[in-house]
Amino acid sequence: MFDPVEKLKEYIRFPSISADPSAKEGMRGAREHVAGLLKSIGFDVEIVPTKLHPIVLAHRGGDPKWPHVIIYGHYDVQPADPLNLWHSKPFEPEIRGDRIYGRGSADNKGPLMVHITAVGRLLERDPKLPLRITFMIEGEEETGSPSFLPFIEKYRDRLKADFVYLSDTGIQRPDQVVITCGLRGLMLFDLVVTTAKSDVHSGLHGGAFRNPIQALTEICASLHTPDGKVNIPGFYDDVLGVEPWERTELSKLGQSEEEYRKFLGVPAFHAPPGYSPFEALRFLPTLEFNGIGGGYQGEGTKTVIPSKAFAKISCRLVPNQNPKKIRELVYNAIRQRVPKDVTFELIDQHEGVPYVVVPPDRSNTPKDQSPVLARAFRAADKSIASVFGNPPLYLREGGSVPIIADIKRVLGLDSLLFGLFLPEDNLHAPNESFDLTVMQKGIQASEQILSTVARG
Amino acid sequence: MFDPVEKLKEYIRFPSISADPSAKEGMRGAREHVAGLLKSIGFDVEIVPTKLHPIVLAHRGGDPKWPHVIIYGHYDVQPADPLNLWHSKPFEPEIRGDRIYGRGSADNKGPLMVHITAVGRLLERDPKLPLRITFMIEGEEETGSPSFLPFIEKYRDRLKADFVYLSDTGIQRPDQVVITCGLRGLMLFDLVVTTAKSDVHSGLHGGAFRNPIQALTEICASLHTPDGKVNIPGFYDDVLGVEPWERTELSKLGQSEEEYRKFLGVPAFHAPPGYSPFEALRFLPTLEFNGIGGGYQGEGTKTVIPSKAFAKISCRLVPNQNPKKIRELVYNAIRQRVPKDVTFELIDQHEGVPYVVVPPDRSNTPKDQSPVLARAFRAADKSIASVFGNPPLYLREGGSVPIIADIKRVLGLDSLLFGLFLPEDNLHAPNESFDLTVMQKGIQASEQILSTVARG
Repeated sequence: MFDPVEKLKEYIRFPSISADPSAKEGMRGAREHVAGLLKSIGFDVEIVPTKLHPIVLAHRGGDPKWPHVIIYGHYDVQPADPLNLWHSKPFEPEIRGDRIYGRGSADNKGPLMVHITAVGRLLERDPKLPLRITFMIEGEEETGSPSFLPFIEKYRDRLKADFVYLSDTGIQRPDQVVITCGLRGLMLFDLVVTTAKSDVHSGLHGGAFRNPIQALTEICASLHTPDGKVNIPGFYDDVLGVEPWERTELSKLGQSEEEYRKFLGVPAFHAPPGYSPFEALRFLPTLEFNGIGGGYQGEGTKTVIPSKAFAKISCRLVPNQNPKKIRELVYNAIRQRVPKDVTFELIDQHEGVPYVVVPPDRSNTPKDQSPVLARAFRAADKSIASVFGNPPLYLREGGSVPIIADIKRVLGLDSLLFGLFLPEDNLHAPNESFDLTVMQKGIQASEQILSTVARG
Repeated sequence: MFDPVEKLKEYIRFPSISADPSAKEGMRGAREHVAGLLKSIGFDVEIVPTKLHPIVLAHRGGDPKWPHVIIYGHYDVQPADPLNLWHSKPFEPEIRGDRIYGRGSADNKGPLMVHITAVGRLLERDPKLPLRITFMIEGEEETGSPSFLPFIEKYRDRLKADFVYLSDTGIQRPDQVVITCGLRGLMLFDLVVTTAKSDVHSGLHGGAFRNPIQALTEICASLHTPDGKVNIPGFYDDVLGVEPWERTELSKLGQSEEEYRKFLGVPAFHAPPGYSPFEALRFLPTLEFNGIGGGYQGEGTKTVIPSKAFAKISCRLVPNQNPKKIRELVYNAIRQRVPKDVTFELIDQHEGVPYVVVPPDRSNTPKDQSPVLARAFRAADKSIASVFGNPPLYLREGGSVPIIADIKRVLGLDSLLFGLFLPEDNLHAPNESFDLTVMQKGIQASEQILSTVARG
């Protein structure tokens, strides 16, 4: 068996920046490195071409009656700039203390290496392991996974499985693993308000007609109530309540509101009544303004009335909200609130991402949960408790991971999201690193989990 | 005497773009051209250096008891781009039909030529004219006149006069001169709202604290009432009512609301109750949003909660509003309306421009009006009626001309603003032109006005 730390170093050396057209060699190198590792532990490896960066599809078959787990990962990384803020070169991995530094070390090269190593060790120890395993490793995660949905639609027959297993979510402390059991959905659009057909002088024409920024801010201001809720009729109608165990589980994280407030740097929180800030960002939907623009934004002044102004708006959605229905509710409310003396446009920015619930083995476990997944959750509880010292917490996250929703929708599969990266790992930022102790514990726990899934 | 059209052609040939550092030769040429013309009609000419572009100060003295009129103009012009939209070269004047085309033809080279020619003809006809005349011609008007205030402060003793006379305002029809008898003041500031200390992920943190764009739009939306008034306590307290003659005078312009609506391209007007759009933009103060910005403004989406958002805001002010007092009222209202969970900053963008009222010889003429100015208004009524076929209309304008306010404040002088350019003259735009018939009539009327001011 290979040394996972040495192989991770080699892996990091490939600058596999999917957003950078000049990084094709790095992409190819990282892809072949992963493919080589999987071949070395006995997998049949196929490089599936896409419009942009090929997907590594590797399979270890066996008796069709064996359980089948799909392990997801990605071999592409974020750009490394600003380079001057790195203490070592981003693509020359360096171990300092318990950490390995380098772009992609935590997102997602280290965590993927955890599972490749765990599978390799498990198969070395137990060559007849009754488990079918498919690795599905894409190269476009950092650019929004445009090829992923067509891929799983095309390969859906080969992706019939019991569940998907991955490590691409975070934890708060190295001794407390979190299994993400819910993700918020997403609905995005632009609102554009237009008044005059061109920019006009605010002295010569100001006061005769409504300024588009005025109209836009009036509409935007109508979208929240003073206590922080979304002010759209029907917006909360489908929202499922929070299970008591979820609040309990969250409280076990032991996060300090004051520390979080300082981390954000805000004077005070503004969560709706009855929800702590930690609860609000996991359990409640939102309507956020991601951007706003119009008129003169430079230094000094320009006494212009702009022709138009726009806002970029997104809603995070929770169970049981439907992105299409929410879009219609929001659009209808805005249509009713736009004053008659301006024109406006609502521009869909995305078809929408559904929320995800991965039903853990808890009180709200649905009847139709896969028995193999249920076994995996029990294995995760036990293995993680023994290796990390604490059983995992099952928490919903505020973010949205479109591929998890796509996997559920197209393949019908739930995902076990085994969190492995820490806040201090600096994902998407200079000096990204991965904790080698977490890595070694992750390998042990993952080996045990997969073994238990296969053999009970 | 020179031929004014030929001299205007020569004048236009100098590309005197004050904003363009490479146009120094054009600036010098235009300045010397004007200085030469004034010398040729008997003026003592001084070129007064400033930090940027010198001011031409020319004087025709006489008995200190004679009335003294200062004629203002500027020899600089706007940049000519986009060049591809011009039908003839901007600095190669061309006469087509009744118009002379070229950058600066209407703003302000043609109108200034009107008055230089009128003075020249008058002095040729009446060499002993009992009138002191000072031309004060700056070269920074198109860049905000930064040297003008220091100049009039330094030269205030030499600028003791009865009134200031200029043509740098507009008219609507060639047969209907407008004398601008009021300009709105101006107060400008930026409002910046900050929440988190850096941009954060809208999924991981959305819902816990108030988005700065939300806070900004809520504050901005509070600044107007639904019927289009400014919603700041005390904002209208000092506003003087409109005199009945002002509404009558405005109605004589005969503008069509429907044509104005089409010109702007707005679905409907939004003037406060009791005011037509034409009245609102002259007689009422405003609070306008000149710009707004924050977060992601590019193509597509970025699910970010920005750290900050800003609005650039300006108020147009009418008699008797004080910019300093209005600034305090607006700032106080905003301070009270900013939610406690965000931080904010109010940034003064200008010391403020006071409104201007040039008291015409009408019912609201103040007791302290200069008898020489009163005589000038009567002369303007009579001369303009005889030359243009209609007496001038005395109208307030919605814009602000800081130099007029500075002249009033520093020198204590009112200005007679004899409008000469038409909407179709395309000021600040490609194919700027000046109507030669208006020019010739302007010369006749101006000669009569100045003659009457001197001799009654």
